[in-house]
Amino acid sequence: MAGNTFGTLFKVTTFGESHGLALGAIVDGCPPGLELTEADLQRDLDLRKPGTSKHTTQRREPDEVEILSGVFEGKTTGTPIGLVIRNTDQRSKDYGNIQNTFRPAHADYVYDQKFGFRDYRGGGRSSARETAMRVAAGAIAKKWLKQRYGIEIQGFLSQLGPIKLEVKDLSQVYENAFFSPDPDAIPALEEYMTNLRREGDSVGAKITVIAKHVKPGLGEPVFDRLDADLAKAMMGINAVKGVEIGDGFDVIEQKGSEHRDEMTPNGFLSNHAGGVIGGLSSGQDIVVHMALKPTSSITIPGQSIDREGNQIDVITKGRHDPCVGIRATPIAEAMMALTLIDHALRDRGQNADVQCMTPVIKGLAE
Amino acid sequence: MAGNTFGTLFKVTTFGESHGLALGAIVDGCPPGLELTEADLQRDLDLRKPGTSKHTTQRREPDEVEILSGVFEGKTTGTPIGLVIRNTDQRSKDYGNIQNTFRPAHADYVYDQKFGFRDYRGGGRSSARETAMRVAAGAIAKKWLKQRYGIEIQGFLSQLGPIKLEVKDLSQVYENAFFSPDPDAIPALEEYMTNLRREGDSVGAKITVIAKHVKPGLGEPVFDRLDADLAKAMMGINAVKGVEIGDGFDVIEQKGSEHRDEMTPNGFLSNHAGGVIGGLSSGQDIVVHMALKPTSSITIPGQSIDREGNQIDVITKGRHDPCVGIRATPIAEAMMALTLIDHALRDRGQNADVQCMTPVIKGLAE
Amino acid sequence: MAGNTFGTLFKVTTFGESHGLALGAIVDGCPPGLELTEADLQRDLDLRKPGTSKHTTQRREPDEVEILSGVFEGKTTGTPIGLVIRNTDQRSKDYGNIQNTFRPAHADYVYDQKFGFRDYRGGGRSSARETAMRVAAGAIAKKWLKQRYGIEIQGFLSQLGPIKLEVKDLSQVYENAFFSPDPDAIPALEEYMTNLRREGDSVGAKITVIAKHVKPGLGEPVFDRLDADLAKAMMGINAVKGVEIGDGFDVIEQKGSEHRDEMTPNGFLSNHAGGVIGGLSSGQDIVVHMALKPTSSITIPGQSIDREGNQIDVITKGRHDPCVGIRATPIAEAMMALTLIDHALRDRGQNADVQCMTPVIKGLAE
Amino acid sequence: MAGNTFGTLFKVTTFGESHGLALGAIVDGCPPGLELTEADLQRDLDLRKPGTSKHTTQRREPDEVEILSGVFEGKTTGTPIGLVIRNTDQRSKDYGNIQNTFRPAHADYVYDQKFGFRDYRGGGRSSARETAMRVAAGAIAKKWLKQRYGIEIQGFLSQLGPIKLEVKDLSQVYENAFFSPDPDAIPALEEYMTNLRREGDSVGAKITVIAKHVKPGLGEPVFDRLDADLAKAMMGINAVKGVEIGDGFDVIEQKGSEHRDEMTPNGFLSNHAGGVIGGLSSGQDIVVHMALKPTSSITIPGQSIDREGNQIDVITKGRHDPCVGIRATPIAEAMMALTLIDHALRDRGQNADVQCMTPVIKGLAE
Repeated sequence: MAGNTFGTLFKVTTFGESHGLALGAIVDGCPPGLELTEADLQRDLDLRKPGTSKHTTQRREPDEVEILSGVFEGKTTGTPIGLVIRNTDQRSKDYGNIQNTFRPAHADYVYDQKFGFRDYRGGGRSSARETAMRVAAGAIAKKWLKQRYGIEIQGFLSQLGPIKLEVKDLSQVYENAFFSPDPDAIPALEEYMTNLRREGDSVGAKITVIAKHVKPGLGEPVFDRLDADLAKAMMGINAVKGVEIGDGFDVIEQKGSEHRDEMTPNGFLSNHAGGVIGGLSSGQDIVVHMALKPTSSITIPGQSIDREGNQIDVITKGRHDPCVGIRATPIAEAMMALTLIDHALRDRGQNADVQCMTPVIKGLAE
Repeated sequence: MAGNTFGTLFKVTTFGESHGLALGAIVDGCPPGLELTEADLQRDLDLRKPGTSKHTTQRREPDEVEILSGVFEGKTTGTPIGLVIRNTDQRSKDYGNIQNTFRPAHADYVYDQKFGFRDYRGGGRSSARETAMRVAAGAIAKKWLKQRYGIEIQGFLSQLGPIKLEVKDLSQVYENAFFSPDPDAIPALEEYMTNLRREGDSVGAKITVIAKHVKPGLGEPVFDRLDADLAKAMMGINAVKGVEIGDGFDVIEQKGSEHRDEMTPNGFLSNHAGGVIGGLSSGQDIVVHMALKPTSSITIPGQSIDREGNQIDVITKGRHDPCVGIRATPIAEAMMALTLIDHALRDRGQNADVQCMTPVIKGLAE
Repeated sequence: MAGNTFGTLFKVTTFGESHGLALGAIVDGCPPGLELTEADLQRDLDLRKPGTSKHTTQRREPDEVEILSGVFEGKTTGTPIGLVIRNTDQRSKDYGNIQNTFRPAHADYVYDQKFGFRDYRGGGRSSARETAMRVAAGAIAKKWLKQRYGIEIQGFLSQLGPIKLEVKDLSQVYENAFFSPDPDAIPALEEYMTNLRREGDSVGAKITVIAKHVKPGLGEPVFDRLDADLAKAMMGINAVKGVEIGDGFDVIEQKGSEHRDEMTPNGFLSNHAGGVIGGLSSGQDIVVHMALKPTSSITIPGQSIDREGNQIDVITKGRHDPCVGIRATPIAEAMMALTLIDHALRDRGQNADVQCMTPVIKGLAE
Repeated sequence: MAGNTFGTLFKVTTFGESHGLALGAIVDGCPPGLELTEADLQRDLDLRKPGTSKHTTQRREPDEVEILSGVFEGKTTGTPIGLVIRNTDQRSKDYGNIQNTFRPAHADYVYDQKFGFRDYRGGGRSSARETAMRVAAGAIAKKWLKQRYGIEIQGFLSQLGPIKLEVKDLSQVYENAFFSPDPDAIPALEEYMTNLRREGDSVGAKITVIAKHVKPGLGEPVFDRLDADLAKAMMGINAVKGVEIGDGFDVIEQKGSEHRDEMTPNGFLSNHAGGVIGGLSSGQDIVVHMALKPTSSITIPGQSIDREGNQIDVITKGRHDPCVGIRATPIAEAMMALTLIDHALRDRGQNADVQCMTPVIKGLAE
């Protein structure tokens, strides 16, 4: 496939299947001198890991990451960082019965078409389990962005099925099982999810990620624009079907006089653009939204075919999240971080001598 | 910048500014043996070119493309295809007055921050004028996709400001100045645009692109998924702020039992996924929507700053499209074509020996 | 650094330091369906591994490789193959005394200049220990090349210091500790090496690698020519200072009438070109030679400086090969295999439809 | 092919055939702010261009380059630089007779095998005529390297057939038609070439290129080492069959005690390594040698086959250099420059914060 690398200068390559021996990654291009231990990665991995609430899959994986290289005497050396997480709670036999069938909305059929056969154990490589390594690599990027550039990244659940969540208190996002920025909505979310599980159904979700304190000018037009690479990063997350920067699809009905973010010596007056103009960061908060489809694994029977093309009915057993969107928040943060660090390095590589005389004006949110 | 190349095996690199001497591109990786003349490219260029109706910029550019290499005795040779279009209707003096000011919602400020100065003539490289070369390169990809794989690509305007367009007759899309798939809506579009010009304002739009007859299995997970690369391709078009595959943001409120596209021996029963599952093409129509922001150049005064940081009022003169979305249809088709040909070649490179025994089932639309 | 990936479609990324926890690699782009077990990799790893004769370093590393992903039910799946080898015989304390000194001809000084500090334990990442992963990845490439294309790769020692080795019996190369193609020369090699160890000195070597049965046309001019990529692959092996294709530096004094490989319906009449013409494989044997410098770690004192810039005398202790060239044979074979598989896939991706009517003529050696 | 791009951050992509309409290039990633005019490129183009002495091809090409983009008000803008040179002295009819034959040692046969047919006019894309664009792009790199880093690049002819040239006066290299560093040898070179032309034969050559004032630490191990990328750059020049860094093939017989470049507070005591250690620049002069094969186009008849596989005799007419090595000096300089600027940008991108406390010691030559 050779499609398992993300980034140009800060390159992350991953491997691993849902029910294989291990997941792993190589982070190549991390600058030297960053203090780094497994604990820095574990915090984000723990946020993503399964089995932490009754609303996610009951598979129990500690997701303990080991740093195998690239760190010496507590600091990154500039050489590639090897990461590995051993799988411990595989239950491949759960999947024996789907060996010859294609679950609707799953990658089963398309993987079979592409490769001539597939690893049917829990979706193999197509399982979202691989995103654990994105989170691990993203944690390194986040730490570097924070320490070196002061950039902070914050994701949250902005909608679950029909329930839209207000941003009331971002400090509470990691304190609840839903990554909800509205602590008051949690009972409603609990109830909705409980009913959903009873129905044996699943539902979609919307996630928002914000990056603060990004300097103006990151992005490499005309193709490697910052917004283009953010779109790739987010659409590449399992189950994502839509990506917006700033006002996104609302711009269709906006007038130019309404959409444009006017500027004053004291800063921008609005942020409809979501922090990216002309493919470059504007210095305002970067705001990205994404839509995640409902989990494909549900117990309500559905029509499908087997490998011989015969009609069958499929009920998907195994252990699954009834809303994959919930656990996507740390993954979206990781992909934001990986995109930004790559562009920060690309910008510095080529333009380190640029002396811009124009004052940087303030973003709205600051 | 080094961000001006699109693709991995079918590589397109472009150059050129709005008011420079010429635009150009190199298409590297086009397979040998394709019959190709300038006329194949000119058709799509004519669809995109300015000045063809009163609803687009009045700049007059014939956009005549010259093929400088890579074609011998009427066929591609497999070597790089050099393309060039001379600019003929530059009016740089229109822009002298913005040399030291930043137009809101334009790339002026961010380019200045990135590069330390900018080419202020019509936006320089940040102008959508560069998309002419994407269209030219895309025309080569389209021809190859059609001839070798039977893939057809069709874009259209699906919404202009508040006016939503029904898909009534796709054969009429290229016959009207709006790329509207609903010929009956044209008077309403005309009227809306006329009023908009009078107000000196602009408006957003939504474009849809569909690819038919794509075989299952294109895409290279986990990062170079087909949907991820389509998102990058589309979000990288000037003014695009949102991208959807299939049902897009509607999936947020969908249940799993509703979203999943069930399969039968006679084919899929629905296409909520928009033709991409698990990052791979499913064999169904690939359906992509995108939202384009309103043109930033309007004559209604707006607040901004100059290069010294002083408060100013800006009115954007020059020749502009009041709705950039209108002319985006051929650009979106081109980016779809460039994404698909690259993935078709990547898939064949690696998996040419794969003998899949599973029958390919039909997509919904066929 | 982000320089730890080799290849475009068959991508190998490695990590690991001489005295770190482990070495590892991700092989991304291996086609599906290849039967593969650890044993396929172990054979080549055993040929490279240290401590197998008195003429190589006495560090004892079993170099047991584990396949962590990408193989299911005994076959490759087309997803990335994760590989890891745990280090077991680190003796970091051997290197405590060089922490602040720069050993001449070692990478100590330049790594310090690049990264601001270095991993001084056995050279860290700059140690040739990392080549174990090249050999592991190369073994996968070799197996695929053999099985799918019939390509065979054979390396051997062609010169050790002043002793030039004749190609008498290639079947004996892996049967002796020197990779000598001349079994009769082994006593002389033994004696030479014994004297060298006594002197506390080291010596250079020349390695040759040949690939047989490569079809004509591999290579992607004008920059990714096959010869250019072979040169990169070989010059990138630790200690290599020169690379030749075919007659190499002998061509300087050749006349055109002498150098050109004439063609007849029965095949080429000579192979001065070494199987690459115009950057493409010619169908003849591909012949590459390389020169390896003497090991830098010797016990004869040498002048150097410490991190403060003071003059010091250096004696390099630790466990080292007195001739690094000896163990380079399997590494050179691996790099040949990785280069060829990548070009085989690139060629098929783009040119799979090409129907060449010209008969393929035979290479000289066949 | 998609092999026509060189570099990672300073990316050069070229197009054009020997007898097509034009040659061209896009230089993507050139930092903003460099003063640049066509004259900066023309100097090097004039050094490479044909027809300047009786010892090179008599084809008359002014090789006048036009900068189409990326430069505004006399300075680079950071956007891609489009370059084009129109061909003016094509004589395609010279080649009609070789349409169905394969000239020995030419790329005719292998291009036919790869692409299914070929552009037979003067070798098409395989002609060294394409190197004009490498020289043009290299001139931009050279100017930047000189101005920003103080790096100077100097190539020269070090051997022509049997005549070895001493480095007597580098200032004379561009003053004679042979790029000879020994002005006294010119009569001998003249005589040798005159005899060669009479014989209708050709001969090989050796070129050396040196880069001065390169700071320590450029290069990205383990695969994108500086020496590896230099080897790729040089081996990728038409006719090159061997590349050496520093002592090159002489290291085979060297002892470690002889080869190692000892260090003192006043600098290195020797430069056997040729300025690259462990894949990184050492701060010493970078010294690269390369061997070029004799021109394949000679008038002495040779055996070959036609496209149907019949035996034929070939005499190559047309206008050719009897020693392609002579004009290779500016090409080799260009490739050295392109390699160094790319690595300079890559190093700065990732390691710009590194504060190295170790003093940089002097190279031998300074």
